[in-house]
Amino acid sequence: MGLVVQKYGGSSVADAEGIKRVAKRIVEAKKNGNQVVVVVSAMGDTTDELIDLAEQVSPMPAGREFDMLLTAGERISMALLAMAIKNLGHEAQSFTGSQAGVITDSVHNKARIIDVTPGRIRTALDEGNIAIVAGFQGVSQDKKDITTLGRGGSDTTAVALAAALDAEVCEIYTDVDGVFTADPRVVKKARKIDWISFEDMLELASSGSKVLLHRCVEYARRYNIPIHVRSSFSGLQGTWVSSEPIGDKQVEQAIISGVAHDTSEAKITVVGVPDKPGEAAAIFRTIADAEINIDMVVQNVSAASTGLTDISFTLPKTEGRKAIDALEKNRSGIGFDSLRYDDQIGKISLVGAGMKTNPGVTAAFFEALSNAGVNIELISTSEIRISVVTRADDVPEAVRAVHTAFGLDSDSDEAVVYGGTGR
Amino acid sequence: MGLVVQKYGGSSVADAEGIKRVAKRIVEAKKNGNQVVVVVSAMGDTTDELIDLAEQVSPMPAGREFDMLLTAGERISMALLAMAIKNLGHEAQSFTGSQAGVITDSVHNKARIIDVTPGRIRTALDEGNIAIVAGFQGVSQDKKDITTLGRGGSDTTAVALAAALDAEVCEIYTDVDGVFTADPRVVKKARKIDWISFEDMLELASSGSKVLLHRCVEYARRYNIPIHVRSSFSGLQGTWVSSEPIGDKQVEQAIISGVAHDTSEAKITVVGVPDKPGEAAAIFRTIADAEINIDMVVQNVSAASTGLTDISFTLPKTEGRKAIDALEKNRSGIGFDSLRYDDQIGKISLVGAGMKTNPGVTAAFFEALSNAGVNIELISTSEIRISVVTRADDVPEAVRAVHTAFGLDSDSDEAVVYGGTGR
Repeated sequence: MGLVVQKYGGSSVADAEGIKRVAKRIVEAKKNGNQVVVVVSAMGDTTDELIDLAEQVSPMPAGREFDMLLTAGERISMALLAMAIKNLGHEAQSFTGSQAGVITDSVHNKARIIDVTPGRIRTALDEGNIAIVAGFQGVSQDKKDITTLGRGGSDTTAVALAAALDAEVCEIYTDVDGVFTADPRVVKKARKIDWISFEDMLELASSGSKVLLHRCVEYARRYNIPIHVRSSFSGLQGTWVSSEPIGDKQVEQAIISGVAHDTSEAKITVVGVPDKPGEAAAIFRTIADAEINIDMVVQNVSAASTGLTDISFTLPKTEGRKAIDALEKNRSGIGFDSLRYDDQIGKISLVGAGMKTNPGVTAAFFEALSNAGVNIELISTSEIRISVVTRADDVPEAVRAVHTAFGLDSDSDEAVVYGGTGR
Repeated sequence: MGLVVQKYGGSSVADAEGIKRVAKRIVEAKKNGNQVVVVVSAMGDTTDELIDLAEQVSPMPAGREFDMLLTAGERISMALLAMAIKNLGHEAQSFTGSQAGVITDSVHNKARIIDVTPGRIRTALDEGNIAIVAGFQGVSQDKKDITTLGRGGSDTTAVALAAALDAEVCEIYTDVDGVFTADPRVVKKARKIDWISFEDMLELASSGSKVLLHRCVEYARRYNIPIHVRSSFSGLQGTWVSSEPIGDKQVEQAIISGVAHDTSEAKITVVGVPDKPGEAAAIFRTIADAEINIDMVVQNVSAASTGLTDISFTLPKTEGRKAIDALEKNRSGIGFDSLRYDDQIGKISLVGAGMKTNPGVTAAFFEALSNAGVNIELISTSEIRISVVTRADDVPEAVRAVHTAFGLDSDSDEAVVYGGTGR
């Protein structure tokens, strides 16, 4: 008998009907002979409503109490789901993160899982129950306070439980059919990916793909837990994310997995920086001290006549104000002429392990953008990813052009072959 | 420095404004030099909304999961209350029933508190925090499952914590000014009681007064914890419930504490029962086996000609159907002619420890009812209470007549003096 962990997001359990539909699905998995552990998020808008209440009583809610508040959301959905399953004649028990043994550090609102001790889950399974576990939450190791895991936390809970219980698979149920070669809202011909490696999925996740978060995929890779991303509204196979293709279906690794885009970033250019050792360090120490994560960095060639250069970097728009303030505050320490802030940028990334062995991918990528009339402002690459920054307005056209150029459109059956030199 | 336990009901924290108002009140108590523990119920209609959701997914929700669901309500209110207090510049931490050490038996939906181990609360207080505790909930000793305490559970939580922490007082904040000599909706001249003994309060609670439940008063009496029932909407002194009058204000024990009424009961008459030993036992064993609590019982004098008698008893209307079914099912075992069911009855009770030493109270009570033209159907007495059953329609007039006759109306300053014989 296999052990399966299933995770259902808030949109899948948005109301009583959704909960009953999901309950049927869970019972199917149990009837197929599996032990089933279900991780569930808060219903639909519950979390937003709770946040709204918190803001009404306090402009800056304390982390510990905010976590206590938010965890009420999963408590409601998991209890209802257990009831709905029992109503179908199967045994079910719900468990909070704390009861399920999800042990975290003490960083409220974005705690990290440091251990999972699922003794009560194991017992419940051995007694024939379906175990329903609250996603997104845990209990801190030192103070025994309730914590939440931050964005994407329920997916991480599911993968962590799958690892601790040595599950065969972690099924992530969502409102889309799986991971696509591009955002289907932008590229109508985007194709569902049948299988993708952890590495490519990590790059897609950090490049703007929102189906799975980086953190959850990283956890799954570390413990080698296959993830199956699929729709809770259909019975279709979704996307398998694993180290190697699963089962008897032999999937050949695509050269290119997909095209991701991200318009949530802004660009800051520090103008007129003296071109001498330690300048970049001064800038990025200032940013790091403000606890801001940056993404891409480019330093221009300095003008020989002035000995000054410009340094540009990208960062989440939400951190823009904080970064500008931090830099201005340290202007004399760093030494620069001015700051330019640009939040009308977009990032397009091409991801695929095949890049490593297929020269010419970079050239083909730039050609596709050039043919679409898209100007490139910044470039950054990893072994299996190329990213460029363009005007935000150009993003949809650029993504479509690249998707077509690399043969990812759903009506073409084979990827194009790349030749030539370079990359 | 004293330790005060305050309890706020759902109507006091119905919305963000209510939570902020209550937070100010709590901070006042802290500023007055007290250590403060606050027990809070779920906000306004939250519990009803959760019950409604449960009914949508399952007609008979399992007890364990139902408790898990309902406890989300206090989790929300207590976290918000802690945030609101911190926003006023004072330290506060919220605790679930489990974290607060409220240990119960395993009877879901109506668990009983069997121990309170408030180690975390004590620590939080010693660190200067106001401790906010979820009312109505605990954790079962054997299975470590979340339980709820049933109706009035938050009051019981407050009294139990007050006992475990050796508090000076347990303040129960509600939407009325205290305990009145009669229900002010029925008797306009009802007077707020300044002090009442545990014993009289117990009798009032079991006779239909809804301000405090029997269970909570019983707990307070056992551990000798003074209760102060007062309004969260005003700064007025409310009603003190304790073994002896509190503080320097010497309150003389009233002969009569108040008049309670109850129209939630029905009367069942078992007609034509053979007047021989074991008959009443057979009837009440049948009722007890159906887990129905009965209140008053009367057996008529049997008619010599037939050797048959009638037995009447009262019970909650909600249990009526079940009782009739149980008796009908066991008709041959018991042996009776027919059953009469009457749900148009009301009960009026006069409560006061002074009865013990003031003969004539019973006579004056019956005279008042007679003068008001109220017919009495059943009578039952304890040492400090007389109750009668009348037609439900007669209840308001009967309560007013008795209230006036015993000098309880707010414009008369002294209780009437009873003379004569009897009781």
